[in-house]
Amino acid sequence: MLAKAPTAVREEAESGTDMSKPSAEEVPQTLEGWYVLHDVYSIDWPAWKALEESDRHDIGAEAESWLSAQAACEKGDSAAYSVVTQKGDLMFVHYRQSPEDLNTVELAQKHIGLHDYLRPAYSYLSVIEVSLHEAQAIAAKRIADAGIEQGSPDYADAFAKELEKQKERMNERLFRDVPPHGYICFYPMSKRRGETVNWYAISQDERRMYMRRHGSIGHKYHKEVTQIIGGSVGLDDWEWGVSLHADDPLVFKKLIYEMRFDPASALFAEFGPFYIGIRKSPDQLGSLLRP
Amino acid sequence: MLAKAPTAVREEAESGTDMSKPSAEEVPQTLEGWYVLHDVYSIDWPAWKALEESDRHDIGAEAESWLSAQAACEKGDSAAYSVVTQKGDLMFVHYRQSPEDLNTVELAQKHIGLHDYLRPAYSYLSVIEVSLHEAQAIAAKRIADAGIEQGSPDYADAFAKELEKQKERMNERLFRDVPPHGYICFYPMSKRRGETVNWYAISQDERRMYMRRHGSIGHKYHKEVTQIIGGSVGLDDWEWGVSLHADDPLVFKKLIYEMRFDPASALFAEFGPFYIGIRKSPDQLGSLLRP
Amino acid sequence: MLAKAPTAVREEAESGTDMSKPSAEEVPQTLEGWYVLHDVYSIDWPAWKALEESDRHDIGAEAESWLSAQAACEKGDSAAYSVVTQKGDLMFVHYRQSPEDLNTVELAQKHIGLHDYLRPAYSYLSVIEVSLHEAQAIAAKRIADAGIEQGSPDYADAFAKELEKQKERMNERLFRDVPPHGYICFYPMSKRRGETVNWYAISQDERRMYMRRHGSIGHKYHKEVTQIIGGSVGLDDWEWGVSLHADDPLVFKKLIYEMRFDPASALFAEFGPFYIGIRKSPDQLGSLLRP
Amino acid sequence: MLAKAPTAVREEAESGTDMSKPSAEEVPQTLEGWYVLHDVYSIDWPAWKALEESDRHDIGAEAESWLSAQAACEKGDSAAYSVVTQKGDLMFVHYRQSPEDLNTVELAQKHIGLHDYLRPAYSYLSVIEVSLHEAQAIAAKRIADAGIEQGSPDYADAFAKELEKQKERMNERLFRDVPPHGYICFYPMSKRRGETVNWYAISQDERRMYMRRHGSIGHKYHKEVTQIIGGSVGLDDWEWGVSLHADDPLVFKKLIYEMRFDPASALFAEFGPFYIGIRKSPDQLGSLLRP
Amino acid sequence: MLAKAPTAVREEAESGTDMSKPSAEEVPQTLEGWYVLHDVYSIDWPAWKALEESDRHDIGAEAESWLSAQAACEKGDSAAYSVVTQKGDLMFVHYRQSPEDLNTVELAQKHIGLHDYLRPAYSYLSVIEVSLHEAQAIAAKRIADAGIEQGSPDYADAFAKELEKQKERMNERLFRDVPPHGYICFYPMSKRRGETVNWYAISQDERRMYMRRHGSIGHKYHKEVTQIIGGSVGLDDWEWGVSLHADDPLVFKKLIYEMRFDPASALFAEFGPFYIGIRKSPDQLGSLLRP
Repeated sequence: MLAKAPTAVREEAESGTDMSKPSAEEVPQTLEGWYVLHDVYSIDWPAWKALEESDRHDIGAEAESWLSAQAACEKGDSAAYSVVTQKGDLMFVHYRQSPEDLNTVELAQKHIGLHDYLRPAYSYLSVIEVSLHEAQAIAAKRIADAGIEQGSPDYADAFAKELEKQKERMNERLFRDVPPHGYICFYPMSKRRGETVNWYAISQDERRMYMRRHGSIGHKYHKEVTQIIGGSVGLDDWEWGVSLHADDPLVFKKLIYEMRFDPASALFAEFGPFYIGIRKSPDQLGSLLRP
Repeated sequence: MLAKAPTAVREEAESGTDMSKPSAEEVPQTLEGWYVLHDVYSIDWPAWKALEESDRHDIGAEAESWLSAQAACEKGDSAAYSVVTQKGDLMFVHYRQSPEDLNTVELAQKHIGLHDYLRPAYSYLSVIEVSLHEAQAIAAKRIADAGIEQGSPDYADAFAKELEKQKERMNERLFRDVPPHGYICFYPMSKRRGETVNWYAISQDERRMYMRRHGSIGHKYHKEVTQIIGGSVGLDDWEWGVSLHADDPLVFKKLIYEMRFDPASALFAEFGPFYIGIRKSPDQLGSLLRP
Repeated sequence: MLAKAPTAVREEAESGTDMSKPSAEEVPQTLEGWYVLHDVYSIDWPAWKALEESDRHDIGAEAESWLSAQAACEKGDSAAYSVVTQKGDLMFVHYRQSPEDLNTVELAQKHIGLHDYLRPAYSYLSVIEVSLHEAQAIAAKRIADAGIEQGSPDYADAFAKELEKQKERMNERLFRDVPPHGYICFYPMSKRRGETVNWYAISQDERRMYMRRHGSIGHKYHKEVTQIIGGSVGLDDWEWGVSLHADDPLVFKKLIYEMRFDPASALFAEFGPFYIGIRKSPDQLGSLLRP
Repeated sequence: MLAKAPTAVREEAESGTDMSKPSAEEVPQTLEGWYVLHDVYSIDWPAWKALEESDRHDIGAEAESWLSAQAACEKGDSAAYSVVTQKGDLMFVHYRQSPEDLNTVELAQKHIGLHDYLRPAYSYLSVIEVSLHEAQAIAAKRIADAGIEQGSPDYADAFAKELEKQKERMNERLFRDVPPHGYICFYPMSKRRGETVNWYAISQDERRMYMRRHGSIGHKYHKEVTQIIGGSVGLDDWEWGVSLHADDPLVFKKLIYEMRFDPASALFAEFGPFYIGIRKSPDQLGSLLRP
Repeated sequence: MLAKAPTAVREEAESGTDMSKPSAEEVPQTLEGWYVLHDVYSIDWPAWKALEESDRHDIGAEAESWLSAQAACEKGDSAAYSVVTQKGDLMFVHYRQSPEDLNTVELAQKHIGLHDYLRPAYSYLSVIEVSLHEAQAIAAKRIADAGIEQGSPDYADAFAKELEKQKERMNERLFRDVPPHGYICFYPMSKRRGETVNWYAISQDERRMYMRRHGSIGHKYHKEVTQIIGGSVGLDDWEWGVSLHADDPLVFKKLIYEMRFDPASALFAEFGPFYIGIRKSPDQLGSLLRP
């Protein structure tokens, strides 16, 4: 009867486990930080160029102040990029406390003069996430390194304390500014749920093995690339929105190509569109718009 | 000859059952409530901003009254949301007695001034549904709890009475107002009909087992999330339109991510686009449109 | 060598049959009636509303006469529907003798004033078809009921005569008016040609068994729903265009959902977009366009 | 190691063949004729209708002369069709010596007045092709019919001579005018390269057997339908562009439906969009554009 | 547990290898040259034709100087093509040092007059790449040909020197001008990552065998076709952007069709859209735009 069910479900069924209760521990636990909006626009160049030079100057200056103010926001950050190819001209990246705060940014932007010359090109909503399992693993290792054995009376307390400390350290990654590098590479992705190759139907152990291996590739490049993982299940059309930040764009190709041979990607990754942008500080926005 | 046929069909063929008669009991029975229209629009901001402030005020006020009147409708409800990302600016959700009544709402909306500044972005037609099987299961349990045994002479009458009572209770879910929460998450979905993994080719028992397990995850979150399931087979391009209503948007991610590991989703769910909106009462509509 | 070939082809190859000759009897034979055009438009509401009331009246009146004249056409029929959701505003359904006659209708429509306010939204070309096999099966049954045995000398003549009679009766379904019901549900569909589940690679016997079973579900609903099957292989992008006509739209959901559990759909159906419309007589067209 | 490789490659690997050399004889050889452009446009009817009647007349007359001149071209041909459904209004079909010549036609068309009222709807580039294998098979048969045996001293010469003759006869199909029939049915298609069902991974013998069988269906209809096969690998997005020309459009459905049950299509064909058009001579172009 | 993992991963797991470390030698190493932008536009012909002849002349002349200047750039090259079919009118191909330099070209182009009449149609970002393995193989062969045996004391030095020489020779292919041929054929492609046929899950040996065989087909045509392979993993939506340059467009069809039967393509290639263009020197740009 359960021919199609993944191994774990079948085993539960056979072992008499109450099948109507999901095994929650199978679900990877995550910690969340800022909500993220990637917001790509094309410029209506003919209309923009038809403006008087002085109008272009004023509108550009207003956009610069708007972006400066957004970037100066206390609970979050904002940045702008000049997009390569016809996929868009400008990409804004906003980090904020909630989707509602992101919506406030969107609505405010609609009321600056520049918005009349922007045409929607792409957008993506996610929330920065890190794996709770990662914090747990680090905490466990540190407790062990400190010589506290797993059965010892102090273990539970020590672990809980260390885990809190690790979670706090994670906050530096969860509630951070947009990395300052010259290039961004953004793409959304999902884990494959194919008829035979299905990320969500393999065991948690197998998933962890794949992710460890996968993470170690990312780690190899960690000096050159800062990676921001935004979880987007239930928020947008793919499961994650990934931003890579680096000063040398070739490293995007090297890193992602190397990952493609790694089973976590080779077997299970499905990729959406890729966006490459060049960082522009608020005061470069105006000149980007002028010859 | 029937190599491709699902087990049940093959068994019928082998057992000499008259194959020209479908086995209707295989089809999950449902109860239906209000028809639902999710109606997403982008605002033509340059045209809107080019209006005189007084015109914007008047048009906004007219839209507010229109929405108030719609929300006050006796047989149904209406609500508005500010949409996050470029997927749209405004989402209206209408509950009504029939597609014709929803069409009347659509046509009325076309004649308010605001409509001239709206551009169609997405829409979805469904009808709120609950499982009849759920009502039957509850009724059966209550009869059993009341000590009436399944073979006893009073059973049939008692069950029929209790089932009616349960169906009436279902009406509170079928004919209800739009949940009042601050956030909405809407997405359409279908059950997979793959070449080897096919929801409609497994047995009713297996489907029920999966749905029970699936429902129990929803239940875990029921205090934070109100879920409205709209059936849309034959009405729109996916099989269901799902609305989640909550005050904390993170719970959308947590709930849907947890479900993704549950076999009903992991193996069988195919998802359309996701829309996130922030509830706006009718009298907030005008201010949403002004800086 | 023929590892991928369907059983029938492999058997022929092994039996030494001349493989260069297709076995035509494998192809289901059909009878064809009117060609059908489903023609969906969105209205450019801002432009339409910007007209003087008197112009709207005149243009609406002209459209009403045009539709009346089309509906009065001797060799065919025409009908109009108000479309629910953003998929369109108006759907015209035209039955005519040939694609050329449908093209004449299209071109005539382009020259009425209303066309300037219509934007193409969707269209579908097909030709009403019924299964010749169905006529043959009925004829065979009637001959048998009349006591003429299959080997008897009168059989061939009697069968030919009865078949002619049945074909003539089919004409009522092939050359008919658009059903008068209040709601239409239109969708295109194809039979799956997957790598392992392939409608065109199973035997004619298996296909017939599936279709008989499938037809019996349609039959269950025949009092509430009139079904018009348009064949569109070689005419448009799917293999069939299906129109369901009913007064209660819930029956679309019930019928199609029940069919989805039937193997002919569960395993083999692939569906295009669904359109729901509300019938408007020619003289309701103008009022549909006015508040 | 070569678990995924098709049989032929695996056998070569096992037999020690130099795998770095492809076996060119596996590639079906073709002869090529005119390059073909199918060019579909929608008319901007509101703008066109807004013109003065005399302007419409002049622009129509200019378009008629342009099309006449194109159709009169010595090295190729041109034809026009009125397209049924919203897929377009006008389809031009041009046969020319090279893509550059087709580009010259395109650029010339852009400078006639009518082009200002045309909106691009679809286009397809291909080159008429016939199978060299077909010419070889006919030549071999004729030599055999003439009593020249395969081992005889005259064979090679006789075959070469006969093959040249057959190639010349093929020129009538390769360098021909657009067939004159009243209806066109155009669609692009590719052979499936699925994970298990892959046209390019079966043996040349198996492919030939399928194509022979397939061709014999086409042959059955050859009096009613003229088929023009345009190869488009490397030229456009599908592998072939197929045009069927007939006076009765029902024959498109009958032919393509019969082919769909033939394994070459049933298993291996993937179809793009279908376009149905009604032939218009150059001097009918103007009237097509007027009521 | 690792049922879905590719052989190599499974073997490592079984052999006790540290699975958290990827085996980097599995990743094909590449050398990179110029970044490449393919940039396709449609011309807004009605707006362009509405200009005064003298304006068209001036704008055309400005575009000619702009393109001349771009083509004269020291670190890269630029070229223009007239595109066949409705996929576009003009394709620019730019080779530059970095995505930022390409972005500078894009922004400069937006400020010439012609840009007001261009509509974005397609674009693709990649970077010219050659296989480091190819350089290594050539170096190894040359050392062997020179009689230096693999175990000999001079081997390592000789190989390193020869490899440097080969890398330098590769620079001629990496940092080169746009090939001068009359026709371009551009298309993006990826290697399949199917559920059972997955390029990234086979062994490096098998991949090399396939690519050697594949390369030898390209080599057969190398006098008639110059092939530029742009790697685009992490840069754009496919894994490679391929440009073929030839004077006879038929060779595109012959080459790609022959490759399609080769397992590297037959089993593993997935193709995006194909663009065919005719080379125009900068001083032909203006006349292309005039009748």
